Amino acid sequence: MRAARYVGHGGIEVTEVEAGPPGPGEVQLAVAYTGICGTDLHVLHGAMDARVTLPAVLGHEMSGRIAALGADVTGWAVGDAVTVMPLRWCGTCPACAAGNSHICQRLDFVGIDSPGSLQERWNVPAGLLVGLPPGIPLAHGALVEPTAVAVHDVRRAGPVAGQQALVVGAGPIGVLIACVARAEGARVLLAEVDPGRRAFAERLGFEVVDPSDGGVPEHVDSWTAGAGAQVAFEVSSSQPGLDAALASLGVRGRLVVVGIHPPQRQIDLFRVFWRELTLLGARVYQRQDFERAVALIADEAIPAAELISRIEPLATAEAAFHSLAEGQGVMKVLVDCGGSDD
Amino acid sequence: MRAARYVGHGGIEVTEVEAGPPGPGEVQLAVAYTGICGTDLHVLHGAMDARVTLPAVLGHEMSGRIAALGADVTGWAVGDAVTVMPLRWCGTCPACAAGNSHICQRLDFVGIDSPGSLQERWNVPAGLLVGLPPGIPLAHGALVEPTAVAVHDVRRAGPVAGQQALVVGAGPIGVLIACVARAEGARVLLAEVDPGRRAFAERLGFEVVDPSDGGVPEHVDSWTAGAGAQVAFEVSSSQPGLDAALASLGVRGRLVVVGIHPPQRQIDLFRVFWRELTLLGARVYQRQDFERAVALIADEAIPAAELISRIEPLATAEAAFHSLAEGQGVMKVLVDCGGSDD
Repeated sequence: MRAARYVGHGGIEVTEVEAGPPGPGEVQLAVAYTGICGTDLHVLHGAMDARVTLPAVLGHEMSGRIAALGADVTGWAVGDAVTVMPLRWCGTCPACAAGNSHICQRLDFVGIDSPGSLQERWNVPAGLLVGLPPGIPLAHGALVEPTAVAVHDVRRAGPVAGQQALVVGAGPIGVLIACVARAEGARVLLAEVDPGRRAFAERLGFEVVDPSDGGVPEHVDSWTAGAGAQVAFEVSSSQPGLDAALASLGVRGRLVVVGIHPPQRQIDLFRVFWRELTLLGARVYQRQDFERAVALIADEAIPAAELISRIEPLATAEAAFHSLAEGQGVMKVLVDCGGSDD
Repeated sequence: MRAARYVGHGGIEVTEVEAGPPGPGEVQLAVAYTGICGTDLHVLHGAMDARVTLPAVLGHEMSGRIAALGADVTGWAVGDAVTVMPLRWCGTCPACAAGNSHICQRLDFVGIDSPGSLQERWNVPAGLLVGLPPGIPLAHGALVEPTAVAVHDVRRAGPVAGQQALVVGAGPIGVLIACVARAEGARVLLAEVDPGRRAFAERLGFEVVDPSDGGVPEHVDSWTAGAGAQVAFEVSSSQPGLDAALASLGVRGRLVVVGIHPPQRQIDLFRVFWRELTLLGARVYQRQDFERAVALIADEAIPAAELISRIEPLATAEAAFHSLAEGQGVMKVLVDCGGSDD
């Protein structure tokens, strides 16, 4: 079978490798689609070479069908459509002991710390499987993982029904957060510098604002009749985005920090105090977020077809990375790993 | 009657002024004690000259007895022992409309934005009164307001029972937060650079650590068996204090921002994301915090007698400010405004 492997120096090689049988407690998946995300790009660009073991099979946003069951696997059958929640935790560290195993202090993020789904066959522990109901195209199933990120981010904000939410950054995760928040009953405004992304968000029915002139707080002030936003999501990973999000919040507003920032950022801590704001870090997801993501995709609250910009064959997987890196109009790029029956 | 008034340029003058009768809905209080706080010092040092109207009667931490009732006041009687919750809100701004009138966008903080209690007689709206039960010495009643600050700060952190809490800064508010958190069932560690304040906190039964060598996170790591603190209170208003508090938190830890910081502070936002931390701004209090503060003082969960370092007569009120400004060993300084019957 073929696997696409990161071999260092910005290179992905597609090579023939042997597909071993699934071990006890594992299933072998016929991978249908694997989505490429920003973290995968960071790996390709060498930013995570200290963490990955070469050659590395990347891929953690996927869908497929069960091709074989290892020993001791119950509750699953060959042919089941599934996705994978790519987290393996230690179960014993203080985070796990406190019930926060998704941010385990020794977390194995599958697809980075251990082999991922950019291959035709993939053996994974059955405990990581999340079933996909009939009727979800397998291509859409590859969007469950990033949607689960968005579900977790929105859940961290607390109830948003009836509230006005600002999302700063309208890349794939920003748009997914907007979709999830809207599905939960929020009115959403997206701030995005790129005109193509703004146009895309508008086609999905969202209100948008161009933050380039620094006027987001004034815009939000008017949008909220002087109250300020009740919740904001910082997804731009930029200092101006962070500033705009904080300055747009009303009293007791909550800011969910989604974007990955350098360790030191300037924060208007006086405003945090004065308005009794809350800042919340949000990272990956928990099983309930995955299950909610599946339901939102099944209900078409997530416009999966519109979000998939392009599908590349496994043979030219490296092109999928490059089109994501280059194309401003590109949202999600999937790699067709051969197991699709859509 | 006499009033101590801030006249600008660092000066407090005690002068004879006329005590008008209480207006409709007001009571006239015979002020027993007024505590001086850090904000009062800021006013004296000219930092808030743009906000105060000269000559300004300061004072918002007080106790006293009702000396006269204005028209339309019900539920109170002459002689009742009371303190005052020194907040007047507009009732119509978005903060008030959302039920957060304590951080009203047009808040009148009594004792800064309008006349305070550093006088023998003080007319205040009856709606601001909070009753003091028999058995609380009036001097201790002057500590209700700063205790309510601490109660609010701890409440903002969410439930702390059974948790390990770090308090950075062992001035009066830091020590009060430690006392409140302990009363709510937390195990408390205080980080404080001043040896005199550390010794004071130890006499109150708290664990302490000297943060001068930057080793607070390692100390907390050991104190919590590697888990990190579940909650931290930043009361030092310093960048190193903020850094120490953030670096000491375990997964899903909460940091309550109590100290007043300049608008721009450096924050390790990657850690906020990675550990899913929560930062919470906390400002003043709500009525339930005042009522809880009264109960904690009545129950002697707050060591009021130990916290009162000195009592100055009204005639030399300025000396109270100076002893607070100068004395590292000083916790609370009260001004005896003449209405005490302790």
